[in-house]
Amino acid sequence: MTFHRYDVVGIGNAIVDIIGRCDDAFLARHKAPKGHMRLVDTGELMGIYSTMGPAIEISGGSAANTIAGIASLGGKTGFIGKIANDEFGRIFAHDIRAQGVAFSSAPAATTGGATSRSLILVTPDGERTMNTYLGVSTHFTPADLDAELISGAAIVYLEGYLFDSDDAKAAFRTAAQIAHGAGRKVALSLSDSFCVDRHRAELLDFLQGGVDILFANESEITSLYETADFDAAAGQAGQHVELAALTRGAAGSVIVAGGQCTAVPVHPVAAVVDTTGAGDLYAGGFLYGLARGLSHIDAGRLGGLAAAEIISHIGARPQANLAAIALQSGLKV
Amino acid sequence: MTFHRYDVVGIGNAIVDIIGRCDDAFLARHKAPKGHMRLVDTGELMGIYSTMGPAIEISGGSAANTIAGIASLGGKTGFIGKIANDEFGRIFAHDIRAQGVAFSSAPAATTGGATSRSLILVTPDGERTMNTYLGVSTHFTPADLDAELISGAAIVYLEGYLFDSDDAKAAFRTAAQIAHGAGRKVALSLSDSFCVDRHRAELLDFLQGGVDILFANESEITSLYETADFDAAAGQAGQHVELAALTRGAAGSVIVAGGQCTAVPVHPVAAVVDTTGAGDLYAGGFLYGLARGLSHIDAGRLGGLAAAEIISHIGARPQANLAAIALQSGLKV
Repeated sequence: MTFHRYDVVGIGNAIVDIIGRCDDAFLARHKAPKGHMRLVDTGELMGIYSTMGPAIEISGGSAANTIAGIASLGGKTGFIGKIANDEFGRIFAHDIRAQGVAFSSAPAATTGGATSRSLILVTPDGERTMNTYLGVSTHFTPADLDAELISGAAIVYLEGYLFDSDDAKAAFRTAAQIAHGAGRKVALSLSDSFCVDRHRAELLDFLQGGVDILFANESEITSLYETADFDAAAGQAGQHVELAALTRGAAGSVIVAGGQCTAVPVHPVAAVVDTTGAGDLYAGGFLYGLARGLSHIDAGRLGGLAAAEIISHIGARPQANLAAIALQSGLKV
Repeated sequence: MTFHRYDVVGIGNAIVDIIGRCDDAFLARHKAPKGHMRLVDTGELMGIYSTMGPAIEISGGSAANTIAGIASLGGKTGFIGKIANDEFGRIFAHDIRAQGVAFSSAPAATTGGATSRSLILVTPDGERTMNTYLGVSTHFTPADLDAELISGAAIVYLEGYLFDSDDAKAAFRTAAQIAHGAGRKVALSLSDSFCVDRHRAELLDFLQGGVDILFANESEITSLYETADFDAAAGQAGQHVELAALTRGAAGSVIVAGGQCTAVPVHPVAAVVDTTGAGDLYAGGFLYGLARGLSHIDAGRLGGLAAAEIISHIGARPQANLAAIALQSGLKV
C-alpha cells in the first residue's frame, strides 16, 4: 500500500484566457471553428484581439482548470506547466498557487516566447470558441517534469492539447512511466475533437498501456474511433482503458468500467452563461471523487456539479467554493 | 449654438483591476480601509497580491468605467489617460477602444513605471476595497491632454482621484479651461472620501468656477463640507455648482439644482455581487441622460439603472448592453 501526498497532479498548457463575447458572424469572419480550439500565431492572435469586444482576463488552461476545481473541492493538488517571465506568467502562477495548488515551475528564459494565452469567444448561446497562442508552452519538454510531484500523486492527469507539440508528447510518455513506476494511475483528457483528428494514431497508441482513466466528450470519443455511434465508441474505449468518463453535454455523462456503461444525469443549472471549462471541471469533480473513494456514479455526480458551477459564469476557474456546494448537495467527500 | 462630436470625454487614471474575494480579517491584516481606495507602492502591491486569492483582471479606472458605461448606453465618448508600453497597457487600450471609446493616448516611454493597477478586494457583503498602484499615471501632465477631444465634447468628466498627483491637478485646471472656452460643461466626481480629505481645500477652490456638475456619494459630500448632515452638505453643493447628483447607496440618489433637492429611487437589483463601479456607472447613466436631453430625474434613473447592472457582477465594466436594458425599462434615450 502506497500513500500519496497529492490527490491529483495535472500536466498541461499554462494559459491565461482572454474572454469576450461575439456573435456567430464574428466567428465566421475570423474562420474560427465554433465550439473548438484552434492554434493561432501572433499575427492571427492580434488580428482577432484588435477586432473583438471588451474582454476579461482569467487564468485558464484545460488541465489547470481541472486541478483548480479539485483544489476548490478540498483536494491536494499540483500542476506542471510552462510560463514565461511576463505579466501573464505572473497572473497564471498567482492564481493557481492562490487556489492552493503546488506549482513549482520557474518562468522560462525570455527567448522562448510569451506565456500562452487563448482568445475565447463566447456566443449568445453560451458556446465558447478558442483561439490559442501557445508561445512558451511549445517548449515544454520532459525536462520540465517534476518527478517527485508526479510520483507523489494518486493520479496524474494529462490534457490532450499537449499532443500538439512533439516535445510535450515525449513528456507525456515520461510522465506516464514515472506515475506507473510509482504504482499510480494515469488519466488523459482528449481535449478537443480537432486535436483528436490531428493525433489519432498516436493517441490510440498512448491509450493502450499508457492510460488508465480516459475523459472525452461525445464528439471526441466518436472522432477517436471514427464512428458516428456513441455506444460503439464507448465500448471500444472500455477495451482500451480501465475506466472512461464520457460527457454528453446536457444529457449528462456515461461511465464505462468493467464492460458496463452507467449513465449519470446532468446537474441542474439555472442559466448557461459560458461553457468554457465544463469538461475540465467535470474531470476535476470525477477525479477528486475517485481519489477519495466515491463510487463511479457519485464521482460522476461530483463532476456534473463542478461543471454546473463553471458554466453559470464567465471563465473556467471556480468562483464559488465547490466543497461547500458539494456538501449542500449531499456529496460529502 | 455649438454642436458637439462627443457626448462625454473622460479624464482619469487608466487602470486594470485585479479583483479577488477576501474576508474582513484579510483587510485588517493588510490595514486596507474597507470600502475605500488607498494608494500603494510596488512593495505593498506585491505583499497583498502574493497572499490574496485567485483573481480576475478587468479594465477599470473610475472615469474610464463611467465612459465605458456611456458608450454601452449608445453615447459617443472619448477617454484621456496614461498607459505604459506593457501587457496591462495593451489590455486597457483594447478594452476601452473595443467599447467604442475614442482613446488616442500613446503608451508612455518605458521609464515612467508600469500601467496602473488596482488590487480590488471584494468581501462577502459585496463591498470593495481598493489598493491602487498608480505607476505611469503619476506622470499625467497637461501635455497629455487632447484639446480637440475635450473641446469636441458636450461634457468633460474628471475623476477626483487625479488630485493625488500635482501634475494631474494642473491638467485638470487646463482641461476645465479648454472645455469652458469651447462653451462646454465640466463634471467632477469626488471619487473617495479619503481622497476628499487629502485635497479638501483645493477641491473646494476648483469646484467654484471650475465645475458645473458634481458627483459624490454621501460620505464624500459630507467629508467635503465637514458636516455629518447630508442635507446641509447638499445645500452647500447647490451653492457651489449648477447641478449636483449625490448617491446614497441603497437609498437612491438626490439631484440638487436651482435650489431644489429631488430624490430619485434606487433601481432594483436581485443580488449585490460586487459594488465596484457603482458610482462610476451612476455618473455614466446620469451624464448620458443629461447630454441627450433627459430631465434630471430621468437622468438619475438612468444612472441608477447602469449602477444596478454593474453591481450584479464582478468588475466595473458593463457585461450587458446597457442601451437594451434602458429600452426595456422605458428609458429610451
